Amino acid sequence: MALRFAKRMNNIKASEIRELLKLTQRPEVISFAGGLPAPELFPIEEMKKAAMKVLSENGAAALQYGPTEGYNPLREKIAKRMAKVKVDATIDNILITSGSQQGLDFVARVFIDPGDVIICESPTYLGAINAFKAYEPRFVEVATDNEGMILEELEKALKENENVKFIYVIPDFQNPSGKTWSLERRKGLVELANKYNVAIVEDNPYGELRFEGEILPALQHFDTEGRVVFLGTFSKILTPGVRLGWICAQPEVLSKFIMVKQGADLQSSTTAQMEVNQLLEDYDLEAHIEKIKEVYKRRKDLMIKTMEQEFPEGVTWTNPQGGLFTWVVLPEHLNARELAVKALEKNVAYVPGGAFFPNGGHENTFRVNYSNMSEERIVEGVKRLGEVLREAVK
Amino acid sequence: MALRFAKRMNNIKASEIRELLKLTQRPEVISFAGGLPAPELFPIEEMKKAAMKVLSENGAAALQYGPTEGYNPLREKIAKRMAKVKVDATIDNILITSGSQQGLDFVARVFIDPGDVIICESPTYLGAINAFKAYEPRFVEVATDNEGMILEELEKALKENENVKFIYVIPDFQNPSGKTWSLERRKGLVELANKYNVAIVEDNPYGELRFEGEILPALQHFDTEGRVVFLGTFSKILTPGVRLGWICAQPEVLSKFIMVKQGADLQSSTTAQMEVNQLLEDYDLEAHIEKIKEVYKRRKDLMIKTMEQEFPEGVTWTNPQGGLFTWVVLPEHLNARELAVKALEKNVAYVPGGAFFPNGGHENTFRVNYSNMSEERIVEGVKRLGEVLREAVK
Repeated sequence: MALRFAKRMNNIKASEIRELLKLTQRPEVISFAGGLPAPELFPIEEMKKAAMKVLSENGAAALQYGPTEGYNPLREKIAKRMAKVKVDATIDNILITSGSQQGLDFVARVFIDPGDVIICESPTYLGAINAFKAYEPRFVEVATDNEGMILEELEKALKENENVKFIYVIPDFQNPSGKTWSLERRKGLVELANKYNVAIVEDNPYGELRFEGEILPALQHFDTEGRVVFLGTFSKILTPGVRLGWICAQPEVLSKFIMVKQGADLQSSTTAQMEVNQLLEDYDLEAHIEKIKEVYKRRKDLMIKTMEQEFPEGVTWTNPQGGLFTWVVLPEHLNARELAVKALEKNVAYVPGGAFFPNGGHENTFRVNYSNMSEERIVEGVKRLGEVLREAVK
Repeated sequence: MALRFAKRMNNIKASEIRELLKLTQRPEVISFAGGLPAPELFPIEEMKKAAMKVLSENGAAALQYGPTEGYNPLREKIAKRMAKVKVDATIDNILITSGSQQGLDFVARVFIDPGDVIICESPTYLGAINAFKAYEPRFVEVATDNEGMILEELEKALKENENVKFIYVIPDFQNPSGKTWSLERRKGLVELANKYNVAIVEDNPYGELRFEGEILPALQHFDTEGRVVFLGTFSKILTPGVRLGWICAQPEVLSKFIMVKQGADLQSSTTAQMEVNQLLEDYDLEAHIEKIKEVYKRRKDLMIKTMEQEFPEGVTWTNPQGGLFTWVVLPEHLNARELAVKALEKNVAYVPGGAFFPNGGHENTFRVNYSNMSEERIVEGVKRLGEVLREAVK
């Protein structure tokens, strides 16, 4: 027998990171490969209290089906929190999703016909590339500098390509590069989207984890035409295990996403939504975020300092102002995929950067995560990486 | 501005049931319209204990990311439980999904190219029609009698249509008809699928809720070629609020679904999976299912008895051996959509049957749910429906 699958299945591969992560789960491996938050910071006791309260006071409702849009008190709280990134939202702008990965899948469904063009940063988030690929788009990468996409290059891409459906960007502490867009570029991007009538997908999982300076307004803040779809998530500021994220968009656009959600999984977990809502009522999430930022900043600073000491000349990296990742660029003749094997021999792991470029190339880059390892392991891991790199550069 | 959406969005409509359900949420409405389990039977205390135990003993893991395939101890338990429908499964056959609605979405993704044919029962589950429609298939409905699809008609459909990708069936207490397939027809269906090299999607949310007689073997029991994809769920035997279901398939087929799951939402909730796993360890799910069956059987019997007393001649209905629904057929000249308005004036709701036929027609039918209303309300609601029908038949 040979079952016949849909053509789209030819475009889907198992995520390289997921496969790599399986290799790195041995406890002796110092893994900078994943994108996991620090589990020692999870508010376990508070989650327990919230679960108890919800199940005791409202158990039948918490275990029953609920509306596709999400649990209203939670939607309301999320709408209010959008003010943190200077977005004016109400409950009618919010759809609860199962993590922001589901938001990525949904934007692909809502916008992409086979052959359509997605414009993205170069590099861009691997999970988004994989989610979008199933819908058979063409990717056009736009070069970035330290302030975001180079707008002249973006305009060229918009002019030269037909059927551009949306521009996908992660403006804050980008995964994988760690870079953040400047205020001017944010404005400029929205203006170009208006001029060329395309949507913007603003993926913002890390925006609140800013170590220094002020949180910048979201792209959606500058949007006067309802063309920005904002994706948020509780995964990095609270816990990923509950799988709760959200889409913030204008109601006429959001209605498309609600219909997609109905067919996709009816709704996100009522139980999880009511428990997280309870947690937000009884617990100071903002103080919790401050704690996360403090720990991650210390880990990031230590990682950068150790890189400065251990990495050979000709290797560069970003020094992010927030988020979970830094990005390393090697001399062009080096291949980070090959070096990953050598690093694994020393029980250190990272993600080779090539996977973050939908059209390939850039094999001399890699992504490093600092949120999930202790300070001691960060120092030891970077030292071992330094040995591998110094050997390679020779 | 006018954002341009994907063509598939033209095929997606808000579910008629969902919109109707909004109207029926006033407390005075006796609603036979939904498909909700009885919330008074949810094991709230046991869920609380399970949540406490998991968060106390293993909180960090429960709140962290987990593998796409699902939490292994839960996959293992589900694999073992497949023996109830005479399917021999191991952990490698099981992928955890966010309810079986997600399973429906995934089979569409894995199998359907635009223009492909899906063969289904006539009528069939509305939620499946909506999930599949987004992928632009053509539906071919096959007539059923009280033993399942009429196999001669099925073979005709297989012969006459190219690009049939799968046959979609709900063999046990079908939604909406309440009918169950006989043993012979189950065997015959698998033989025809083998002969014409198509997949079978076996949707089984209610199979364990059998009020009388023996549970019949699943279609997958008869499958020697790995062409049956089985969809199961905890929604009707435990709680829908946690959104947990599963796909059971051969590993080479399941690997496609795992890749789709990665792009769709990475994984189902670790927290929910670990809590349900704990519940299954500490609590007798089989005894719980017996309790549900007892209550639903009483409600079903009472509903049928009241229909016999109250419904006029020329109206017929099924007497299901399990599950949540019965199906009413009116004389051909009557329109159940129009009568639904009259019923709502009397504060009674059902779902007009036309929505369950992907190619339209059959407006003289409707679906009635008996799991979610008290016995008192069932009697009162059927009486009011009887008034509406007697008036219409006159």
